[in-house]
Amino acid sequence: MIITLTTDFGLTDPFVGIMKGVILSVAPSARIVDITHNIPSYDISEAAFLLEHTRRYFPPQTVHVVVVDPGVGSARRPIAGAVNGQFFVAPDNGILSWVLASAEARLAVSVHHITNTALFNPIVSNTFHGRDIFAPVAAHLAQGLSLKGVGPQILDYEKHALPRLRHLKDGVFVATVLRVDKFGNLITNIERRNLDGPFSIRLPGAEVQRIVSNYSEAEPGEAFAIEGSTGYIELSLNQGSAAERFHLGRGAEIEVETSGVNH
Amino acid sequence: MIITLTTDFGLTDPFVGIMKGVILSVAPSARIVDITHNIPSYDISEAAFLLEHTRRYFPPQTVHVVVVDPGVGSARRPIAGAVNGQFFVAPDNGILSWVLASAEARLAVSVHHITNTALFNPIVSNTFHGRDIFAPVAAHLAQGLSLKGVGPQILDYEKHALPRLRHLKDGVFVATVLRVDKFGNLITNIERRNLDGPFSIRLPGAEVQRIVSNYSEAEPGEAFAIEGSTGYIELSLNQGSAAERFHLGRGAEIEVETSGVNH
Amino acid sequence: MIITLTTDFGLTDPFVGIMKGVILSVAPSARIVDITHNIPSYDISEAAFLLEHTRRYFPPQTVHVVVVDPGVGSARRPIAGAVNGQFFVAPDNGILSWVLASAEARLAVSVHHITNTALFNPIVSNTFHGRDIFAPVAAHLAQGLSLKGVGPQILDYEKHALPRLRHLKDGVFVATVLRVDKFGNLITNIERRNLDGPFSIRLPGAEVQRIVSNYSEAEPGEAFAIEGSTGYIELSLNQGSAAERFHLGRGAEIEVETSGVNH
Repeated sequence: MIITLTTDFGLTDPFVGIMKGVILSVAPSARIVDITHNIPSYDISEAAFLLEHTRRYFPPQTVHVVVVDPGVGSARRPIAGAVNGQFFVAPDNGILSWVLASAEARLAVSVHHITNTALFNPIVSNTFHGRDIFAPVAAHLAQGLSLKGVGPQILDYEKHALPRLRHLKDGVFVATVLRVDKFGNLITNIERRNLDGPFSIRLPGAEVQRIVSNYSEAEPGEAFAIEGSTGYIELSLNQGSAAERFHLGRGAEIEVETSGVNH
Repeated sequence: MIITLTTDFGLTDPFVGIMKGVILSVAPSARIVDITHNIPSYDISEAAFLLEHTRRYFPPQTVHVVVVDPGVGSARRPIAGAVNGQFFVAPDNGILSWVLASAEARLAVSVHHITNTALFNPIVSNTFHGRDIFAPVAAHLAQGLSLKGVGPQILDYEKHALPRLRHLKDGVFVATVLRVDKFGNLITNIERRNLDGPFSIRLPGAEVQRIVSNYSEAEPGEAFAIEGSTGYIELSLNQGSAAERFHLGRGAEIEVETSGVNH
Repeated sequence: MIITLTTDFGLTDPFVGIMKGVILSVAPSARIVDITHNIPSYDISEAAFLLEHTRRYFPPQTVHVVVVDPGVGSARRPIAGAVNGQFFVAPDNGILSWVLASAEARLAVSVHHITNTALFNPIVSNTFHGRDIFAPVAAHLAQGLSLKGVGPQILDYEKHALPRLRHLKDGVFVATVLRVDKFGNLITNIERRNLDGPFSIRLPGAEVQRIVSNYSEAEPGEAFAIEGSTGYIELSLNQGSAAERFHLGRGAEIEVETSGVNH
């Protein structure tokens, strides 16, 4: 059984290694996969988007543990959910918003409040629930525990609004940068179908008017749009960082002029 | 069988991957867990504390490999020890001091000098014993080799004094910052029982006089004390870095005024 | 079966975790080992050298996946090769040059063009072949698929010239820095036998005239030569960074004066 880990713990402290020790103590044959531990500290939105994009490449029954948890030790609930045939274990702070949005229409969601303290570490700290609650609960789920075994189902779990394209005026909409990757590509919430006709994406000092099908098709230094591996349109430079060149980061808004009304 | 790795090798060079290749060549079914490879270069003290805090969350028989080894290739001995039912493989440079201190009272310690060259890589370099000695020895221990099989028991292994609270004058003691974590929390050697009565922890430009039970209890920007996940008192800011705000790092000394004499 | 991963994807984006999800979906019992994901972006040469140095420590049948792929989505071919009893899956951009050079004399090489689209992800992006082609092909090889199953053998795969020692004038040759490691050691293409007699390695502001057998043998702050763990001569400082002190990096050329003619 696969357990994935997504946190803002970094790789310098022993936090992640400790979580793995706890998991393997409960589920000795679990396969543990690190998604990333470099979520910016406390950045729930960043983790939320990344998780939805990532979970699609894991098999059914995978248990995803997500710990970006500024409210650790407060009244915020720990939750475990079944979504689309996989499990998610996380604080109830909206971090599952993208995952839930992709699934709810299909009624494939069941979220439970983790209350069964018998699953927890013997001593539960107020500062490291990744170790004391989320890791052992995930390991028990990987061992076959049902969601009912972690606690009662709830319906009032937290969900955040996702950034949507916004109509500005006739023929112009506003898109949002969802995240910036290591190569400086700006991943937007624009989809391919939103750019069906002629278009112009307004960046500081540049207008992007074409979609290339691969990076090498563009001239060195040229800014271009490309359908990225998430399925969303990315704004990129050939072997350069669009984020640096245009000084844009996550949350930045970008105007897009189109001739059509396909958004 | 679990083998953990703690080094100052970083994650950019292939050193860690190579150690894993060596381990899996000897012990194909070993489960390898990275604790951290971002110990500051040559920083034995940092690794020593972190290891004791971490090993508690791993099951019996786990083999911990710890390679922070400024003396590699010199006369310093390679050692393997059994402590509290787990194994430790490391250079004899004091890096096991915290682990040994936690166990010696219980006579649960046996340290051996690694001398059985038949366990080593065919060619032993003078610069990378992690690959040539520690990894294969750990893999053989994980495969069931006894400590006697690695070499003779020794009693004169190296141990360093651990930082203790120091009495300064009536009602005032001096504590030490043991390490700083990714969030900028200052992990001190103060324990909860040392702060039983009213107290005042003197930080540059601030006096900390209360312990909160979780981060969210504090005001934004407020400095506070909290019992951290290591069991020691940490000095923290709510969603901010205490290390940056107070310009304090590992080894920094902090005066604590108390009304009691409980230290 | 072991699958290793070497990329320039970094550890912040979910790219590596996603590749692991794809691999485990095809080969649930594969053992995945990260070599490094911190290859400088698009730096094929860096990955090429590192791979040859690393693969020697892995058992036969290991599948090495190497993705540094500035030409992703263009006409460059994906390839899979058998070299010295191990498998390599990579873009055909010269990244296997060191591995191939070490093996070709022994006729232990077979390189195939990956054309069997039945092995790929259902949707193949133009930006992330690590996920869509290389990961699933590697997983199928780990499951026992033969190289013939991935596509036809080719002979015109890309190979780059490796940096060789260059004769400058009588008694003087020019060496190249192959890479710099985390500790600032300069790994050169000089071998031990090239320095058999008296020698002088000219660094900016220093002449290195002796080889030590281990780091501690040198004086603090002294620059020295040492046979490193790759088998090549490294230029080092005792507990300091030679790269920083001499402002030298990969590709830098260094003059070496020798009394002999052994190069």
